[in-house]
Amino acid sequence: MGLIVQKFGGTSLANAEKIHRAARRAIRAKLDNNQVIVVVSAMDQSTDELVDLAYQITDRPSRREMDQLLATGEQVSIALMAMAIHHAGHDAISFTGGQIGLKTDRTYGRARIRDITERGRIVSLLKQGSIVIVAGFQGVDESFNITTLGRGGSDTTAVALAAAFKADVCEIYTDVDGIYSADPRLVPEARKLDHIFYDEMLELASLGAQVMHSRSIELGKNYNVRIHVRSSYTDAKGTDIVNVAGDLEQVIVRGAALKKNLARVELGRVPNRPGIASEIFRRVAEREIIVDDIIQVIHEGGTTADISFTIEGGDIEAARNIGHELSAEMPGMKVQVRDKMAKVSVVGVGMRTHTGVASRMFEALRQANVNIENISTSEIVISCVINQDDGDKALRAVHAAFELDQGPRNGDSK
Amino acid sequence: MGLIVQKFGGTSLANAEKIHRAARRAIRAKLDNNQVIVVVSAMDQSTDELVDLAYQITDRPSRREMDQLLATGEQVSIALMAMAIHHAGHDAISFTGGQIGLKTDRTYGRARIRDITERGRIVSLLKQGSIVIVAGFQGVDESFNITTLGRGGSDTTAVALAAAFKADVCEIYTDVDGIYSADPRLVPEARKLDHIFYDEMLELASLGAQVMHSRSIELGKNYNVRIHVRSSYTDAKGTDIVNVAGDLEQVIVRGAALKKNLARVELGRVPNRPGIASEIFRRVAEREIIVDDIIQVIHEGGTTADISFTIEGGDIEAARNIGHELSAEMPGMKVQVRDKMAKVSVVGVGMRTHTGVASRMFEALRQANVNIENISTSEIVISCVINQDDGDKALRAVHAAFELDQGPRNGDSK
Repeated sequence: MGLIVQKFGGTSLANAEKIHRAARRAIRAKLDNNQVIVVVSAMDQSTDELVDLAYQITDRPSRREMDQLLATGEQVSIALMAMAIHHAGHDAISFTGGQIGLKTDRTYGRARIRDITERGRIVSLLKQGSIVIVAGFQGVDESFNITTLGRGGSDTTAVALAAAFKADVCEIYTDVDGIYSADPRLVPEARKLDHIFYDEMLELASLGAQVMHSRSIELGKNYNVRIHVRSSYTDAKGTDIVNVAGDLEQVIVRGAALKKNLARVELGRVPNRPGIASEIFRRVAEREIIVDDIIQVIHEGGTTADISFTIEGGDIEAARNIGHELSAEMPGMKVQVRDKMAKVSVVGVGMRTHTGVASRMFEALRQANVNIENISTSEIVISCVINQDDGDKALRAVHAAFELDQGPRNGDSK
Repeated sequence: MGLIVQKFGGTSLANAEKIHRAARRAIRAKLDNNQVIVVVSAMDQSTDELVDLAYQITDRPSRREMDQLLATGEQVSIALMAMAIHHAGHDAISFTGGQIGLKTDRTYGRARIRDITERGRIVSLLKQGSIVIVAGFQGVDESFNITTLGRGGSDTTAVALAAAFKADVCEIYTDVDGIYSADPRLVPEARKLDHIFYDEMLELASLGAQVMHSRSIELGKNYNVRIHVRSSYTDAKGTDIVNVAGDLEQVIVRGAALKKNLARVELGRVPNRPGIASEIFRRVAEREIIVDDIIQVIHEGGTTADISFTIEGGDIEAARNIGHELSAEMPGMKVQVRDKMAKVSVVGVGMRTHTGVASRMFEALRQANVNIENISTSEIVISCVINQDDGDKALRAVHAAFELDQGPRNGDSK
């Protein structure tokens, strides 16, 4: 007898029929002799509708009240899911984040989980054979103010529950059937992966793969929770997200990703004096602009430098304003913001022990006639900033160069 | 400096504009140097939509899950109301029933309030000048299961808070501008009352006046809360619901009411043996049929009796079934169910000390050519069951006979 956490996203709960389907999944897991915890998101569209209501009232809703408002979305889902399970003749009981004592800090809108305090009640309900349904995305602080966990919050709730109750697996039901070697909408020959390591998934998530949010994967890694991403619509096996273990296949590159809608900020002839970089990036941080791939080049003579970095497309205006401020204060500095950039990346823990990955990537891009604007590497990622117009072509070229459609050569668990 | 509880119903919160209007009311009360607690219902339609969602899932939703679901309606309202007050530049903070510790028993769907435990937090927020917004209609039991208070539950929450915090007044904002001597849609000359006694209001509520639910009036009576029913749309003074006090006007009849869609069950030739009435009404009670105006007449010789009683039109089918059962068991018994009946009533605490009210009422009905099927009286009510087709005419006749359009002769507070 095992314990399974199942998480259903908003698209898997969009209407009564889909809620019944999700309920049948949970019931089947229970009839397979498991204890079952179900975590649900708000029904598709409902969060958008709530946000819209708030912005009809004010253009600057308070974060506390926004969380108070948004948390109702998941509360609707838990009640309906419990009703659907009852309708099929099985026991179920629903809980909000507050009711299971999912305690967080007080960072409204992106709170972090601290503890789950009402474990005793859940354990005894599970033992009695009840399916326990929990509202994802939400918790309470120590004063019972409702908090929400931010993007991907329901995944985080599911993984946190799986960790707290030592579940055998945390199943993430979604509208895709697993993690792919690249986005199948861009690369038709992309292959569904049997498994992927947490570190690889973390990198892919930060590179724009939207299947799971990085916080839930980090949590899974820290507590060694087996996460299984699979389709709500089929019984096909999905993708396991697991810790690095010796007996898994030894691929070098697991997947490739393309992140679009980026911009490159280039600051020319920056006075090369101590603290100048920190001065620039303090302003960037104050405006909550997320920065990536910083390059600094000192010019001959050493009196000026060129500094460039990548930002999200949504931050372009804020970045331009910083550029204006800086060039007003430092005459001679040149500011250029180039939009419509993209980043193509390959990810794989195998890179740690293999060489030649970067050159193989560059060669693939050269053959596809894609110009590389910037390169950044980490232990398990190589990324190239390119023009967005070349993005899809570049992703396919890289995917092919590493034969990601072929699957692993040895030790494959398939 | 006073303390005011303001309660806004769903129609007063139906859209952003109306929510802003309600927010301005609360702010004005605060600028008048009051501490302000605002109680809100779910936005108009939203409860119906939630109920509809539940019935899309199952035709027999569990009561616990229904309460879990319905409580989200008021939670949406509190957040939006807080945002609207913030938008106007004032402090406000919202609380669910659970967050203020509004503890109830575990009767899902019609729970009764036991206590409000988080008073300290509310008191200190009020002292800081924050407008405190509370979700009506909901509470939690001792295990933090969400409960709802049933019909008129937000009024009950408002009056309970007014009692707990010893408010100077509990203002009920609604889409009518007060309590009338009769329903103005039926009696154009009906007069808005300056005040009405709790006992009179309780009777009118049970006789179909839908402005306030009887539980909130009972609570107001028990804790001597001054309730002021007034319009959301105007600044006109509404109606005070208060305890009987010597210096108020001495009217005999305060108001008249008409309750439609009733039915009369007539059981003829019932064997007149001990326990027969209890046998009949046990079955009626088991089907949760609400019964009124029971009459039993023993026939000459004493071997049989006729028993008749009034029921709500919605219970006709259930009543017919009981009739069939009974006549199968007791051959000779005759069962007749007459629908399309109504009850016209006059209410006034002055009846306790005055005579001749009943005869004045009967005379008015006679002159209007309305046939009286049955009469029932209590200390402060006289009711006549009549044909529904005569209802409007009867109500107007009675209203005129007691000169309810004229207002009180002496001691009027107007």
